[in-house]
Amino acid sequence: MDIKTYIEQNKDRFLSELFELLRMPSISADSAYKSSVEDTAKWVKEALLKAGCDKAEICPTEGNPVVYGEKHVGDNLPTVLVYGHYDVQPAVPLELWDTDPFEPVIKKTETHPDGAIFARGACDDKGQMFMHVKALEYMVKEGKLPCNVKFMIEGEEEVGSKNLGAFVHANREKLKNDIILISDTSIIANDVPSVTLRLRGLSYVEVELTGPNRDLHSGVYGGAVLNPVTVLSQMIAKLYDEKNRITIPHFYDKVKELLPEERHMFAQTPFSLEAYNKDLGIAEAKHEEGYSVLESATIRPALDVNGIWGGYTGEGAKTIIPSKAYAKISMRLVPDQDSKEVVSLFTQYFEQIAPKGVTVKVKDLSGGPAYAMDIENKGYKAAEKAMEKTFGKAPIPAAEGGSIPIVALFEKELGTKSILMGFGLDSDLIHSPNEHYGLFNFFKGIETIPYFYEYYSSMTND
Amino acid sequence: MDIKTYIEQNKDRFLSELFELLRMPSISADSAYKSSVEDTAKWVKEALLKAGCDKAEICPTEGNPVVYGEKHVGDNLPTVLVYGHYDVQPAVPLELWDTDPFEPVIKKTETHPDGAIFARGACDDKGQMFMHVKALEYMVKEGKLPCNVKFMIEGEEEVGSKNLGAFVHANREKLKNDIILISDTSIIANDVPSVTLRLRGLSYVEVELTGPNRDLHSGVYGGAVLNPVTVLSQMIAKLYDEKNRITIPHFYDKVKELLPEERHMFAQTPFSLEAYNKDLGIAEAKHEEGYSVLESATIRPALDVNGIWGGYTGEGAKTIIPSKAYAKISMRLVPDQDSKEVVSLFTQYFEQIAPKGVTVKVKDLSGGPAYAMDIENKGYKAAEKAMEKTFGKAPIPAAEGGSIPIVALFEKELGTKSILMGFGLDSDLIHSPNEHYGLFNFFKGIETIPYFYEYYSSMTND
Repeated sequence: MDIKTYIEQNKDRFLSELFELLRMPSISADSAYKSSVEDTAKWVKEALLKAGCDKAEICPTEGNPVVYGEKHVGDNLPTVLVYGHYDVQPAVPLELWDTDPFEPVIKKTETHPDGAIFARGACDDKGQMFMHVKALEYMVKEGKLPCNVKFMIEGEEEVGSKNLGAFVHANREKLKNDIILISDTSIIANDVPSVTLRLRGLSYVEVELTGPNRDLHSGVYGGAVLNPVTVLSQMIAKLYDEKNRITIPHFYDKVKELLPEERHMFAQTPFSLEAYNKDLGIAEAKHEEGYSVLESATIRPALDVNGIWGGYTGEGAKTIIPSKAYAKISMRLVPDQDSKEVVSLFTQYFEQIAPKGVTVKVKDLSGGPAYAMDIENKGYKAAEKAMEKTFGKAPIPAAEGGSIPIVALFEKELGTKSILMGFGLDSDLIHSPNEHYGLFNFFKGIETIPYFYEYYSSMTND
Repeated sequence: MDIKTYIEQNKDRFLSELFELLRMPSISADSAYKSSVEDTAKWVKEALLKAGCDKAEICPTEGNPVVYGEKHVGDNLPTVLVYGHYDVQPAVPLELWDTDPFEPVIKKTETHPDGAIFARGACDDKGQMFMHVKALEYMVKEGKLPCNVKFMIEGEEEVGSKNLGAFVHANREKLKNDIILISDTSIIANDVPSVTLRLRGLSYVEVELTGPNRDLHSGVYGGAVLNPVTVLSQMIAKLYDEKNRITIPHFYDKVKELLPEERHMFAQTPFSLEAYNKDLGIAEAKHEEGYSVLESATIRPALDVNGIWGGYTGEGAKTIIPSKAYAKISMRLVPDQDSKEVVSLFTQYFEQIAPKGVTVKVKDLSGGPAYAMDIENKGYKAAEKAMEKTFGKAPIPAAEGGSIPIVALFEKELGTKSILMGFGLDSDLIHSPNEHYGLFNFFKGIETIPYFYEYYSSMTND
């Protein structure tokens, strides 16, 4: 049976299984969801066994467990390591969801006329990860698995994969592979397939400013005491210059300019500034001087405040000078920037620009390097051919702005490259209320994956 | 019986009555406490009747009720209107209180070796307002009331007295008086009495910035979209210049310089910068160029961010560009600045400095003008003499940084001046966790008030 027929015959079951997975609120950023995270790991392990893995297990870490599974078909065949994650972003603010984030529903949208699954994690990454489980099921059941397969599905991607490094390091032998396959990125559009060649890295810090040792009456003290919220605002304001460049000294020291042909290759990505602004409801996008808006969001570094808080935030007017102010600040990095070094440059600068009336603490929350790969890689070629087969046109090599910090780690620990063959869309609202994943995309992923195995296996046998 | 003996004989009862009042969480900023606010108004009404008022009533307003009471003793005697408030500031953050904010306890402190009452509202303003009730009780019981008395105790002072203006306007006849007496300010120290001659006004706004129409993934969009938190920070950073002057155009147009002799008079207030910084736990206070730290907090305007929020503020690292950012911003004003005009100057400037990629909303939350009075006023003279009698030394005329916006309103509507004879200390942590009020101060207030009536009555009969 070919994959298309198999999907057709099993699509309702695939969806009902995925819905079970989406109903589990496996939010890794909030420890209140710990037991749901553990239940989800168990569910994924069982799903791997049911799909045909020889074995599957839940591997404890210092944090949330990693689910490992494998199917061995031949000593001379190449081994594909599938990476994904079963944890999800927090669903707050809940009131902005049209439906329960943990009760998936299918609704049609303009972008997804065949329907899309609305739920936290539908696209990032439960839906995309589960495509690999179902593709395996097909290949095992039909005797069409031309590679050995290993699965490593983690539970801390949304909080910086903080225990995955130790796990991978300790299990280098077990995780040995020829190529790593990951679906946690997007295609440009349902009729414009793409494979991600480049990702940004991440440095994520939380800063705490302390002014007076207590909240003060803003009448009695206003004018005479440095207000930590005002100071934090002034410090954040100093992080960008008028060219939209980050002002942290030495921040750009390791940032390399792309070659003109590389910029040209990435510029193939169709991009309409008008549509972009309209989609986001903004009058104007921004960009770093000398770079396009698209380049600013992909091949150039960026700095964002992810959250800020301090003082009275309730109803009405409380007249205080707060004692403390906080912000969560993340930086997106490009290849060759070191995440820890960037945190230390940030910290030095932030301490340096703090006036004498406040004290500053910077906490390193998570991070990882950027990633870039080459279009000559066999894995890339296999992905390109597989997508061309199922989409009817070759994918565009794309630079993405997001981070999967662990791909650089995999290369370092396991010596292999990762193929970023994702099927989401940037408009799928991952990390936002009303996250969804197109049915077209879910089934197209399941359809494409077996071709990847087929082409990759035959290329490596050449 | 003299007042000292009366206090001595009744002090336990006075305290247990005050504790009852302090146990009621009459937080006006949070509508969840509505019924407690109403209970507190009833309690105050009963307390006025028990203290000897001829009548007392709860007067409804659009918001929280005003408690009115009166005692008439003679048509030819002057009338004193006592103003106070029974509402309190929110008690958050609760975890910073050493004891329950609504279960008063007496503890000794370095500043209050005889003990202080720890509770929200202990000083601001339940404890100070209640001194007037107990002083009335004494004067009525002992037949020593030389003035007619009216009480107007409101329930919205901590949220800008937003309905008091209409109440006062509608009740001009009923509230007719010769002088208004208010205890809602501080003395400099327990051995340095003072009477407040000057207060700052207030303009309090909430700003809302909107960037993209939803929270965005900071990887996918970072670098290409104006982040409203960053923009709000940049805008807040523009509100002060390097001389610590507010940059809003025309903000200082109506700010008058004090005469050298006025600055000299207010400079009598003892002030140790070292002790100030130590008390607040800061390395350095700030001041407007050309003005002392004390002047910057009293006779000069100021701007403070009372609260800021936006984006992800929970545990861990959520990588978003928030759709919205908010801040509560208050400005302290000096005489002749108009609160509404300042809000409109602020709004114009804030809209003007907002970049094209965001939209700005400014909401006027509350406000009122500053207040200044003259040392030749008979009420001031009576207060001076009363304090000199009970403290053993004449009070210093003081400028305070806080606001009681309604004193300007009273002058406008009722044509009379307000005597700001408060007994708190700046170190009493009003508006902060662990607010307290010294027993010395509470009883000294009760002792001083009857002398004010005596001296004021005799001065006006001259």
